[in-house]
Amino acid sequence: MQRYFEAHGAMLEGALNAAAQRTYWSAAPETPSGKIYGETAKADAEAAFKAQLGKPFDLDHPGSRRLGREESPWGFPLGITYPAATLDELVAASRAAGRQWAAAGIETRVGVCLEIITRLNKQSFAIANAVQHTSGQPFVMAFQAGGPHAQDRALEAVAYAYAEMIKVPVSARWEKPQGGGQAPLRMDKNWRIVPRGIAVAIGCSTFPTWNSYPGMFASLATGNTVIVKPHPAAILPLAITVRICRDVLKDAGFDPNAVLLAVDEPQAPVTKELATHPAVAIIDFTGSPAFGRWVRANARGAQVYTEEAGVNSIVIDSTPSFKGMCGNIAFSLVLYSGQMCTAPQNIFVPRDGIDTDEGRKSFEEVAGSIAGAVEKLIGNPERAAALLGTIQSEVTLARVKSVSAGAKPLLASKSFEIPGSPGARTATPAILIADAADASLYGEEQFGPISFVVATDSTREAIDRAAELARTKGAITASVYSTNDAVLDEAADKFAAAGVNLSCNLTGGVFVNQSAAFSDYHVSGANPAGNACLTDAAFVANRFRVAGVRRPAAA
Amino acid sequence: MQRYFEAHGAMLEGALNAAAQRTYWSAAPETPSGKIYGETAKADAEAAFKAQLGKPFDLDHPGSRRLGREESPWGFPLGITYPAATLDELVAASRAAGRQWAAAGIETRVGVCLEIITRLNKQSFAIANAVQHTSGQPFVMAFQAGGPHAQDRALEAVAYAYAEMIKVPVSARWEKPQGGGQAPLRMDKNWRIVPRGIAVAIGCSTFPTWNSYPGMFASLATGNTVIVKPHPAAILPLAITVRICRDVLKDAGFDPNAVLLAVDEPQAPVTKELATHPAVAIIDFTGSPAFGRWVRANARGAQVYTEEAGVNSIVIDSTPSFKGMCGNIAFSLVLYSGQMCTAPQNIFVPRDGIDTDEGRKSFEEVAGSIAGAVEKLIGNPERAAALLGTIQSEVTLARVKSVSAGAKPLLASKSFEIPGSPGARTATPAILIADAADASLYGEEQFGPISFVVATDSTREAIDRAAELARTKGAITASVYSTNDAVLDEAADKFAAAGVNLSCNLTGGVFVNQSAAFSDYHVSGANPAGNACLTDAAFVANRFRVAGVRRPAAA
Repeated sequence: MQRYFEAHGAMLEGALNAAAQRTYWSAAPETPSGKIYGETAKADAEAAFKAQLGKPFDLDHPGSRRLGREESPWGFPLGITYPAATLDELVAASRAAGRQWAAAGIETRVGVCLEIITRLNKQSFAIANAVQHTSGQPFVMAFQAGGPHAQDRALEAVAYAYAEMIKVPVSARWEKPQGGGQAPLRMDKNWRIVPRGIAVAIGCSTFPTWNSYPGMFASLATGNTVIVKPHPAAILPLAITVRICRDVLKDAGFDPNAVLLAVDEPQAPVTKELATHPAVAIIDFTGSPAFGRWVRANARGAQVYTEEAGVNSIVIDSTPSFKGMCGNIAFSLVLYSGQMCTAPQNIFVPRDGIDTDEGRKSFEEVAGSIAGAVEKLIGNPERAAALLGTIQSEVTLARVKSVSAGAKPLLASKSFEIPGSPGARTATPAILIADAADASLYGEEQFGPISFVVATDSTREAIDRAAELARTKGAITASVYSTNDAVLDEAADKFAAAGVNLSCNLTGGVFVNQSAAFSDYHVSGANPAGNACLTDAAFVANRFRVAGVRRPAAA
Repeated sequence: MQRYFEAHGAMLEGALNAAAQRTYWSAAPETPSGKIYGETAKADAEAAFKAQLGKPFDLDHPGSRRLGREESPWGFPLGITYPAATLDELVAASRAAGRQWAAAGIETRVGVCLEIITRLNKQSFAIANAVQHTSGQPFVMAFQAGGPHAQDRALEAVAYAYAEMIKVPVSARWEKPQGGGQAPLRMDKNWRIVPRGIAVAIGCSTFPTWNSYPGMFASLATGNTVIVKPHPAAILPLAITVRICRDVLKDAGFDPNAVLLAVDEPQAPVTKELATHPAVAIIDFTGSPAFGRWVRANARGAQVYTEEAGVNSIVIDSTPSFKGMCGNIAFSLVLYSGQMCTAPQNIFVPRDGIDTDEGRKSFEEVAGSIAGAVEKLIGNPERAAALLGTIQSEVTLARVKSVSAGAKPLLASKSFEIPGSPGARTATPAILIADAADASLYGEEQFGPISFVVATDSTREAIDRAAELARTKGAITASVYSTNDAVLDEAADKFAAAGVNLSCNLTGGVFVNQSAAFSDYHVSGANPAGNACLTDAAFVANRFRVAGVRRPAAA
C-alpha cells in the first residue's frame, strides 16, 4: 500500500542516509523502557509469554499438523506447537502468493516491509521473551539484539533493496544518431523488477531474529516470497515475526502466504529437503560451518548467502590502559557466555610480555588480569545471570568440558545457580592457556564460553597467526591493542587481506562483539566465516533481476 | 595512475550518466571510418594482420612453451603461436601481481582500466581483423562488435565497478548518544575495498572480445587480477587485448602480470583445470550451456558469472507493416549466419494467419515472405558475404545439415562462394517449418543459421510456448509483433516472468539481435541462458568485499 510507504518515508530516508554514510543511526530505541514502549509493555509481554506456554501458537497458516519441541535454556519446556505444512504445501502456497507480490510496485512492497518493521518494534518485549527463552540470552540482550537491533538490520536490508531497485530506471527514450542526414533511431524502453521466486531464510538458535531479518527482508522487499525456516530450538521469535508479516500483508490486500513458516522438530529436520527443493531460488543461512558447507555444495540452483562462523582473535601488543583493556576483553568473553558469532576466542599475547601504562606486564600477568576481570564481572550471581545468560545447547556445555580437559586451565568453567530459574543450563567462561605452536584446539572454532590466551614469540607472529586463522577458518571480528601506529597499520593491512573487520584499542564502552546496523558491515563475505555481508549492495542486488521491453518510438 | 583517471574523467562521467539513465550513449565511434580512426588505419591493420600470420605473437609474458592452432573460417590457418605458461606459473604470477594491484586506490585502478579501453579503441582495426578471422564474422560486424561495441561494454563494467566502490565511504565518525548525561560513544571508522583474488575470464569463439570484456574489466577495476582464457579457436583478439592491458599496467608502474593470458589448443584444453583451481575466486564464462553447467557445478569455491545460450523466439500476432516486419526478421536471421546469442530461432505464427496492413496473410504467406526477404538480402554474393560472414565451427555446419534433414524445409541452407576467400566455411540460413506440438527440434537450441516457423493455434499459445521455452531452456531475446496493446501487454508480462528482454514491433533499423551498451541489460540472469547480466550492479558488487577498521575517537 502506498500509504505505508508514505507513512514511513522519514524512516526510510534516515536509513538510506545512514547506510550511505555509515554514521550512527537507529530507528528503534534500544532501551527496554516503559516510557518508550509503554509502561505496561514489559509486564504484559511477560504475562502473555507465560500464558502461551504449553499451548498452540495462534497463527492462521497452512498445515494440518502441529509441531514444536522448544525448551528454554532457563530450565523449562515451552510446550508450544505451531502449524506445520508439508514442503509441497509450503511451496505451492508460496508460489501462488508470489504472482501478486511480484507484480506489486517497489514502493508498495517497501511500504509493507516498513510497516512490518514498525509493528515488530511495538512487539519488542514479546520478541525479547521469545528470544530469551529459546536462545538462552539474558533478558536485556534478548530485548536489544532480538528486538530493536534486529529491526534496524531489517530496515537496513530494506533500504539497500530500495536503493538498488530504484537505480533501475522505469523508462527511457533511446535515440541513436544516424549519419548522412538520416533520422535518428528512436526506441522507447521500459524496465521492470523481476524477483527470483521463493526465498528461504534459515535461522539459527542463538540470534533467531537478528541473523534472519536481513535476508528475509531483502528477499521480501525485492519481490520474492519468503519461507522462514527457524531452528527447531528457536521457533517462537520467528513465529511471532511471521504472524506480524502475515497480518500486515493481509491488511495491505496481499495473500499472507507471501511469508510462511516451516516448522520442524530436532528429530525430524526438514531443512535439507527445503534447501534443495527445485522451487527455491534464494537461501539465507545462518548456522554452523559444517551445515553451511553442505548448503553451499548442495543448493546449486539457488543463490546462497551464508553467515557461518570462524575463529575470532584479539592481538595484544601494548596498551595505554591496561585496566580498560582487561575489563573490555573480559566483558567480551562474558557476554552471553561467548555464544556470539562476534565473540573473541583467541587472545594472542607475546610470551615476553607487553608495555602498558602500568609498566611492563608479563604474559602471565596479562592472562591473569583478564581472568581476574572476568571473575570480577561475574562475581555477583544476579550480575552473572544478567551478563552470561544461559547456554543454548547441551552440545556447547559438553564442548566446554571436553576442550577444558585437553588444555591448561587459567580459569575453570563452572555452572552457577540463577535465582528463580532452577534447572537453567549455565557455564562460566573457561579461559585456557596455549602456545602458538599448538593450534590443535585454539586453531578450531570452539563455540561457547571457551577462550585461549595464546603465547607468541612476537606481535608479528600474533598478527600473522590470527590473520591466517581468519583466512583459513574464517573470522567475523578481530581486535588489536597497540600504542604503536606501525603495529596498528600492519594489523589493518593483514586483517583486511584476510577479510575481517578490525577493532583497535577498545577499552571503553564499545566491545568487539558489537556490530552496529547502518555502520559496521557485519561479516565480510571474504573469508570462510560467511559468503555474504549483512548488509551491502551485493547482499540485495542479485535477489531481483531486470526485464526490459523496447519498441520503436513515435517520431 | 591518477593522471589516467583525470585524463578520462569525462568518459567515465558520460558512462555513469548513461548507465544510470539507460539512454543512448557511446564513447567509441562504431563507424570504421578513416576520418575517425586514421586514414591509413584500415590498411595498416590489414597489413599487420597478414604479416602476423604464421609467426609468433609478440607478447612479453610468462611461459616457455608456445601454443596456438587457430584457423580462419574464411579459409586459411592463422599459424600464430602465443606464449603459454603452466597453470601453476599463471597462478603464481597472478598472485604476486595481486598485492600491489589490490593496494592501488580506486581511482588509480579505474584510471588504468580507462586508459586500456582508450588504447583498445585505437586498435579497433587490428581487433577487427583478429575477430573476423577467428569468429568468422563479416568485417564490419567484427569491427563494430569486436571493437567499439565491446569497448563500450568494458567501459560500462568499469563505470558500474566505480559506482559500487565509491558507495563505500572511506571513513566515518560514529557517535552514539548515551543516556544519563554520559558522553556519547565515539568511534572513528574507515573502510577499504578488498578484492576477491584471481579472476578468470573464459572467452567464446563467436564474440571473443564483446563477451569477455565486461567480466574482465569488472574484475580488474575492483582490484582482482585477471587470467584471460580465450577459446582455442579465438585467441588473437584477446591476445591483442592482453598485450594492451599489460602495456598500460607497465606504463602505470604495475606488475603487468595483473593481466595474463592462458592459451591452449583444442586437443589439450586447460579450461576445466583452470576453472577448478583453488586459487581462482571469480569466473566469467561465455559458452555453451553444457560447459556452463559444468563450470557452475564444479567451480564451487569461486563466484561464477555465465552467459550461456537459449532458445530465442519471435511471436507474430499482427503487424501494421508486413514488409517492414519480414525485412527486419530476415535481417535478424541473416546477420552473422544466426551465430549471435541474441539471434531468433523460432518464429511462432498462428496457423490461421494474421492481420496486416496488406490484408489477411495466411501462415504460409507469412513464412514464405520471411523466406523471400532472406533470399533477397543474400541474393548478391558480395552482400551475402558482408551480412552472413562465415561459419565459425565445423560443428555448426554439421548441425545445419542434420537438423534440416529432420524437418520440413521452407528454405534450404547451401554453401556459397566468397570472392577472394576460397575455402571459406559458409552456409545460407535454413528455414524450417514446424508445428507447435512437435518441439523435439525447435524446442532445443539449434545454434547457427537454423530457424523454424512454428504454427500455433493462437497468439496466446505462441506467447506461452515461447515464454515457457525461455523459462526452461533459456532465452536472451524475445520479439513480438502486434497491433493489439492487450497482446503486447500480455507478452510483456509473460516474457518478463520468464526473465527475457522483449522487443516489440521492430520493422526498421533496430534488430532484436542488437543489445546496446549502457541501455539494454544484456542477458537477464533470470533464466537458463545465463546467471548474470552484462552489466548491472549485481555483476560487479560481489567482486570485491569491504574490510573495516574502527577505533575509539579522540573526544
